[in-house]
Amino acid sequence: MGHQESLTAYIAAFVAELYSSGITDVVVSPGSRSTPMAMVMAEHPELKVHIHVDERSAAFFALGIAKATNRPAAILCTSGTAAANYFPAIVEAHSSRVPLVVLTADRPHELREVGAPQAINQIHLYGQHVKWFAEMALPEENREIIRYARTVCARAAAIAAQAPAGPVHLNFPFREPLIPKLDEELFQLEERPKGYVKVQSGELTLENNHFQDIAEKLKGKERGIIVCGNTSDNRFAMAVTRLSEALNFPILADPLSQLRSGSHNQDNIIETYDTFLRNEDAKTFLKPEVVLRFGAMPISKALSNFLKENHGAEQFVIDGGGGWRDPAALSTEMIFCNEAIFCEQLLCFLDTNSSSGFLQDWQSLNVLTKENMSLVKDLTELSEGKLFYQLVDMLPEGATLFVGNSMPIRDLDSFFLNNDKSIKVMANRGANGIDGTVSTALGAALYSKSLYLVLGDLTFFHDLNGLIAAKLYNIDIHIILVNNNGGGIFSFLPQSEHPKNFELLFGTPLNLEFEHAVRMFNGKFTKIKDWNHLDMEMKNTIENSGIHVFEVVTNRDSNRDEHREFWRTVSQEISNFVNGAQ
Amino acid sequence: MGHQESLTAYIAAFVAELYSSGITDVVVSPGSRSTPMAMVMAEHPELKVHIHVDERSAAFFALGIAKATNRPAAILCTSGTAAANYFPAIVEAHSSRVPLVVLTADRPHELREVGAPQAINQIHLYGQHVKWFAEMALPEENREIIRYARTVCARAAAIAAQAPAGPVHLNFPFREPLIPKLDEELFQLEERPKGYVKVQSGELTLENNHFQDIAEKLKGKERGIIVCGNTSDNRFAMAVTRLSEALNFPILADPLSQLRSGSHNQDNIIETYDTFLRNEDAKTFLKPEVVLRFGAMPISKALSNFLKENHGAEQFVIDGGGGWRDPAALSTEMIFCNEAIFCEQLLCFLDTNSSSGFLQDWQSLNVLTKENMSLVKDLTELSEGKLFYQLVDMLPEGATLFVGNSMPIRDLDSFFLNNDKSIKVMANRGANGIDGTVSTALGAALYSKSLYLVLGDLTFFHDLNGLIAAKLYNIDIHIILVNNNGGGIFSFLPQSEHPKNFELLFGTPLNLEFEHAVRMFNGKFTKIKDWNHLDMEMKNTIENSGIHVFEVVTNRDSNRDEHREFWRTVSQEISNFVNGAQ
Repeated sequence: MGHQESLTAYIAAFVAELYSSGITDVVVSPGSRSTPMAMVMAEHPELKVHIHVDERSAAFFALGIAKATNRPAAILCTSGTAAANYFPAIVEAHSSRVPLVVLTADRPHELREVGAPQAINQIHLYGQHVKWFAEMALPEENREIIRYARTVCARAAAIAAQAPAGPVHLNFPFREPLIPKLDEELFQLEERPKGYVKVQSGELTLENNHFQDIAEKLKGKERGIIVCGNTSDNRFAMAVTRLSEALNFPILADPLSQLRSGSHNQDNIIETYDTFLRNEDAKTFLKPEVVLRFGAMPISKALSNFLKENHGAEQFVIDGGGGWRDPAALSTEMIFCNEAIFCEQLLCFLDTNSSSGFLQDWQSLNVLTKENMSLVKDLTELSEGKLFYQLVDMLPEGATLFVGNSMPIRDLDSFFLNNDKSIKVMANRGANGIDGTVSTALGAALYSKSLYLVLGDLTFFHDLNGLIAAKLYNIDIHIILVNNNGGGIFSFLPQSEHPKNFELLFGTPLNLEFEHAVRMFNGKFTKIKDWNHLDMEMKNTIENSGIHVFEVVTNRDSNRDEHREFWRTVSQEISNFVNGAQ
Repeated sequence: MGHQESLTAYIAAFVAELYSSGITDVVVSPGSRSTPMAMVMAEHPELKVHIHVDERSAAFFALGIAKATNRPAAILCTSGTAAANYFPAIVEAHSSRVPLVVLTADRPHELREVGAPQAINQIHLYGQHVKWFAEMALPEENREIIRYARTVCARAAAIAAQAPAGPVHLNFPFREPLIPKLDEELFQLEERPKGYVKVQSGELTLENNHFQDIAEKLKGKERGIIVCGNTSDNRFAMAVTRLSEALNFPILADPLSQLRSGSHNQDNIIETYDTFLRNEDAKTFLKPEVVLRFGAMPISKALSNFLKENHGAEQFVIDGGGGWRDPAALSTEMIFCNEAIFCEQLLCFLDTNSSSGFLQDWQSLNVLTKENMSLVKDLTELSEGKLFYQLVDMLPEGATLFVGNSMPIRDLDSFFLNNDKSIKVMANRGANGIDGTVSTALGAALYSKSLYLVLGDLTFFHDLNGLIAAKLYNIDIHIILVNNNGGGIFSFLPQSEHPKNFELLFGTPLNLEFEHAVRMFNGKFTKIKDWNHLDMEMKNTIENSGIHVFEVVTNRDSNRDEHREFWRTVSQEISNFVNGAQ
């Protein structure tokens, strides 16, 4: 059997198994060493091959696909720094539990660490930031090696998807010549032609007596709260809502919990806690004795502080990925159990708690805070807070809202209120970087009905190159660019009180006219004049295709002042209410 | 002593030592966790602080500074994916032996792996790709810890610079609050105010009897060649030229050996071997019995093949960094000795070899090849080969030429001929990636008289963001953008014979009008119409400031055909000559 035949058989078996394992999308960056894999992938009748020249953007693009589909996406690149460019997205995938199958081509063993071109040490290249690394065997065509290639593939896809989901890395050494032999029978496999091994992946659950114990502990508890952070499990919203009803506990719903939008019962869902938990009277008034926490840590610092101050409360942290998401060491019970299963199973052992004033107190402060939103929504100038308040109305039914990090995600938390629309909210909240946002959103847009990305100017700049995917693949995306010419979040941090080098180190104005870049990528660019203009543009462009950027220019200083004025006023109202109520 | 005082004293001592250790430039990316270090750096009276929002570009920018100065440059970023974005430049620095001091801010130990925001595992983040990693102590203000901070700093800078130079990584955990106490006495250190420890860094050399042995082995050898790859040691050109004269061996000089330009004697310097070593008759005619090789592996594949085919020759590989740059396992003697010292010391033990016909044979084929360059230089259409041929004339005296990877560096190798101008040639030839090229060139431009960057469209696109540095810091750069709308090198590779998915996977045309992006960064953009236009523009813009991009549009197919036609014709002439000569 010749080199070319072995190379082809090995790779074709691997690629066929990739598709059998549920991977439909591969993002390929051009290169020489990866040639055989890329050429075979392009021949596959079902696999969608997306080409992306910049590997950093490519990996984030795949991350977006995986986030939107809840299935692993694969990425392929050549050897050398190409593979190093994947690192930021891999770190994010690992932190945010998104499944990725990372395939890197490599020089064979005899060309490593001997100064061969484009050869770097790719063994364990991503260190602790992948769930599994395998250095693949050199291509051979014999049954054992073909079986090996197929099982490693199925295994890699399964490990990536298994909770906690994350990236896996397979490094493929290939010898020259690199051209495979492409014919019609490429994917016709001798053994088990429809897939070598189907991996059945279980979910963590507790035994009944554990649920009984927990039910016992919750029995009769009045001052309980449920905190829900970022989750991607569709079953969870219904399950946790029912649990909340049975316990009569309010749900503090992070915008990424997917609980603020949708048709489930939202009576117990509290969404303005980030505002009212800045008030000391409220915090005293609402002191919990028990906390059930699901999903990632919530975005709100006010909420984190509140939980930290209540370290005496019993805190149950439920994690279906068996992680340890508890930065302030507050959990009294760390429960490794799938979140939806936990809610459903616990319900079997719970009597309904009697309705309590505690839930009503939370609801009252939530209503009061919302009433004071008029301060934000009546602003006539373009403003960041109001933008996020308006989004609910402006977004079409069924939209996906992708939100950039730093200020936008915080404003979303503060101002994006409960609604019965079907709106999915996404963000890169694993490591909270501003990198790769455009590409992640574009990857998600491939599998979303209509995608709206809201992000700041530094975040937009950081991944401007990512727009190339929209140009090359005609992806539809609406981008609301909140341009405050620099890093708005720093105006809220203590360094803003030290003006000397503030603009140099933190404000970092770039003074860019993004219209130029948007045009280069064939996008439409609209500078928003006022709220009517934005409203009209949003309405008129719902059906538009391609890239459409709406630039909302704001001012960092007045933005900070508006936020502070809002918080101050609400805080006053809250204090009046709480002191009157007590 | 309070937290703020300890934080400040610790960091100020470190930053003061950074400057005492010879580091003049730090590239800082904005972030929160890195606040105390950034604020202290900005206070330093001598340290140059460059701000760069995109950490990937930032690290390449520092790489460029370090390449141009032959001194370590430092980079600083916040925790999370920011640090992961440094990875490509770190890999390149490691592979190309460029000193970098990488400083990452981190959460303190109690916030690690517990779901805290922007906290990722940064311990050994860059794996095998840094020379040294240290997890720093938490700030404390006592003499021992201050001494520790200062010695680690001096040590890190020295390790980075010591041959083989490369990156080192220091990870700094910082606790909140993050604001240092800035006053006038910030850098007034109690102990050893002018620098804590000066590191004296030696160079590898052999003992006299070793040199004597080597001289003995070379004695009377007629068929010897010297091969010089990428080096950054200024002493080397003179030393190796003298060695070549004593041995009567030709020097095959890679464009990055810095031997093709300059005032040294160039009689023995052969620069067109990449062309004539494609001919079988030439290879037989020029068979060496001994090879002395210095520096990185040369760019030319024809030369690599020639050396591989002569695996029977004695091959001395001299490496001052003690590396193992020998991908084809050809060395018979691997010599860990500084290259310039090797040449100088060996000369003390050598009698001059008698002049040989072998040197003349190399010189004859070199002359013959140059005569045939008319095929390239007489082209009237814009062409890639001719561009590199013309560069010598077009570049001003004292220029630095930075060349992109893939086709440009190969065309430079083929067509950039010997000259007596002072032209420094640079490229990212560690891992040979197309990433970070714009930023590396801009970093180098800070310390170069006039910098010309020649690169392809995919390479330009990959680091388009890097141009922001030129805009923000008014860096002067001339960019010759060779736009063949895609990956030109693949037209020379075997996959070009498989047209089915060629354009999709390898050609990858982006169809971008780069003028838009260049304008966004306040650059000037000129689409070159013909050779006269380019010549005129190059002459008229020598004194220009800011970014100036000259776009030279070429065609991938005709480019390949022109190259092949040139090689075919020269090959014919060479065969005629060799067969006539024998």
